[in-house]
Amino acid sequence: MTADAVKRILAGDVRSAARLMRGIENGDRVAFETLETLYPQTGKAYIIGVTGSPGGGKSTLVDVLIGAFRRRGMTVGVAAIDPTSPLTGGAILGDRVRMQQHCTDQGVFIRSVATRGWLGGLARAAIGIVHVMDAMGKDIVLVETVGIGQQEVDVTRLADTSVFVLTPGSGDAIQMMKAGILEVADIFVINKADQEGASRAKVDLKSMLSMKNNLPDERQPPVVLTEAINGRGIEELTDEILKHRKFLVSQGGWQKRERQRASHELTEAIESSLKDYIKLSVNQTTKDKLVEDLVQRRISPQAAASAIVSQLLRQCDTSV
Amino acid sequence: MTADAVKRILAGDVRSAARLMRGIENGDRVAFETLETLYPQTGKAYIIGVTGSPGGGKSTLVDVLIGAFRRRGMTVGVAAIDPTSPLTGGAILGDRVRMQQHCTDQGVFIRSVATRGWLGGLARAAIGIVHVMDAMGKDIVLVETVGIGQQEVDVTRLADTSVFVLTPGSGDAIQMMKAGILEVADIFVINKADQEGASRAKVDLKSMLSMKNNLPDERQPPVVLTEAINGRGIEELTDEILKHRKFLVSQGGWQKRERQRASHELTEAIESSLKDYIKLSVNQTTKDKLVEDLVQRRISPQAAASAIVSQLLRQCDTSV
Repeated sequence: MTADAVKRILAGDVRSAARLMRGIENGDRVAFETLETLYPQTGKAYIIGVTGSPGGGKSTLVDVLIGAFRRRGMTVGVAAIDPTSPLTGGAILGDRVRMQQHCTDQGVFIRSVATRGWLGGLARAAIGIVHVMDAMGKDIVLVETVGIGQQEVDVTRLADTSVFVLTPGSGDAIQMMKAGILEVADIFVINKADQEGASRAKVDLKSMLSMKNNLPDERQPPVVLTEAINGRGIEELTDEILKHRKFLVSQGGWQKRERQRASHELTEAIESSLKDYIKLSVNQTTKDKLVEDLVQRRISPQAAASAIVSQLLRQCDTSV
Repeated sequence: MTADAVKRILAGDVRSAARLMRGIENGDRVAFETLETLYPQTGKAYIIGVTGSPGGGKSTLVDVLIGAFRRRGMTVGVAAIDPTSPLTGGAILGDRVRMQQHCTDQGVFIRSVATRGWLGGLARAAIGIVHVMDAMGKDIVLVETVGIGQQEVDVTRLADTSVFVLTPGSGDAIQMMKAGILEVADIFVINKADQEGASRAKVDLKSMLSMKNNLPDERQPPVVLTEAINGRGIEELTDEILKHRKFLVSQGGWQKRERQRASHELTEAIESSLKDYIKLSVNQTTKDKLVEDLVQRRISPQAAASAIVSQLLRQCDTSV
């Protein structure tokens, strides 16, 4: 990627940014080098994670949130992470449907992130795509995940404000939240609040949240009722997000999350460097022989790995 | 873990096996050492993966499959992988419910695997638990996953026979399969076949499968209609699984899958060794300083990682 392309991305050019993102998703080395060049220009965007069970209306919610931030004069990037993609090739359709609504708006950039390869790779790609949107000058970057699982926890690690979306009917969602999500989400949204049981769900959730042992510098996460489909509750949600940002900034929480993010990213980069090193350095014949030994049960996996690792370390010994 | 415990596991003792599995799930070093000791006694079990969308009745199907294999005189282990667990703490309830049905049967062992930590860790734990069941002398090990995503692909890598479960109503499932699952599943099950559209779904699926470009040594994956809830179609499914086993053994496919599995496991073990090495070797002060440099944008992630990695390599240089 040329220095020109970098300049274009910093100026907000969508085509150059999209090309770079594609490279990042594919794990392309040059793309990650370009990302390194962009990195000093990042750290300005405010990152919002939107997570929750499938069918909760997250995509619609994200769509109307885009509008709400735009009305407040902020530019918006969206990274939608789709866990079904390793098998289907990506949520390209969802992308297109949404693009139509915002495609004439220069202040909005939406991108689906396919979860090809390992989750580690996904997290790395997601962080990379957030950085590109940040470098493009987007004020807000929304990271949306589909499904419930480890990815939600990772998105929480990535985000400044983490929004968890549930629906009134999903009593199971409340069950599920008891164990972990209560601790990690900053704002709760009960979407489809026109459905029966919405206020009850809010009361239940509030009482669960009040049972948490709050640290002195923590705040009680608000619970917002929304009907994303007709925009109801979205202004309140937007207010709560911006209020949380103010809270983080005033309490030094933003810097803390920046540090967590940087630490997480450093760990990822180290592991990725070492994996590359393994790929380059491990002799294929040696590996094939060890695999055969494993199949024949002449050796055990850890012993085989040790053989490889000690070979690597010897290698780095003689090469320095 | 004592040599006695190892002996007890090899004799099929459930308590010792459960304790070892708990250790494996927690990433306990001693547990993995015990696993190394057991490894030479593994490689005898036949591994069956059962995957598909949530709500397809997989758990019920697995339950009746257990019965079917038991009637044919085979012992059965089940590893049920639950992706919701990082947030909820595990599918212990599901475990218990099932245990009741088979708890008086010494030939059956069921275990839920919580997806704590990274997916890489999960895959490692899942393989480990399969090895323990194998070492216990189970003839069949069923690996069940909930949800659709990367885990399904990984289970396929782990299994000898990969069964994909869908339901007649889920037209989306067929959409999803077009891109990837057709290529990786060995047997398709249309469960809840009493629902409308079951035969139509079978015809559609068959026609999609016939459009695949089959390699000369490949076979057309069968499509089996089942009603797991009342046991209908289960004998046919069991026949198809055993037929696939025969096919694999006669074509050398079993050995090929053993090699893939071993290669995958070796890669995992190498990465895990290197991660341990990073944890032990990276100086926390150095890391903290680099994180601060990242936050201040004085350095970029890859450059920071390189600084650490070169430090690691220097370290191994002087330590040898």
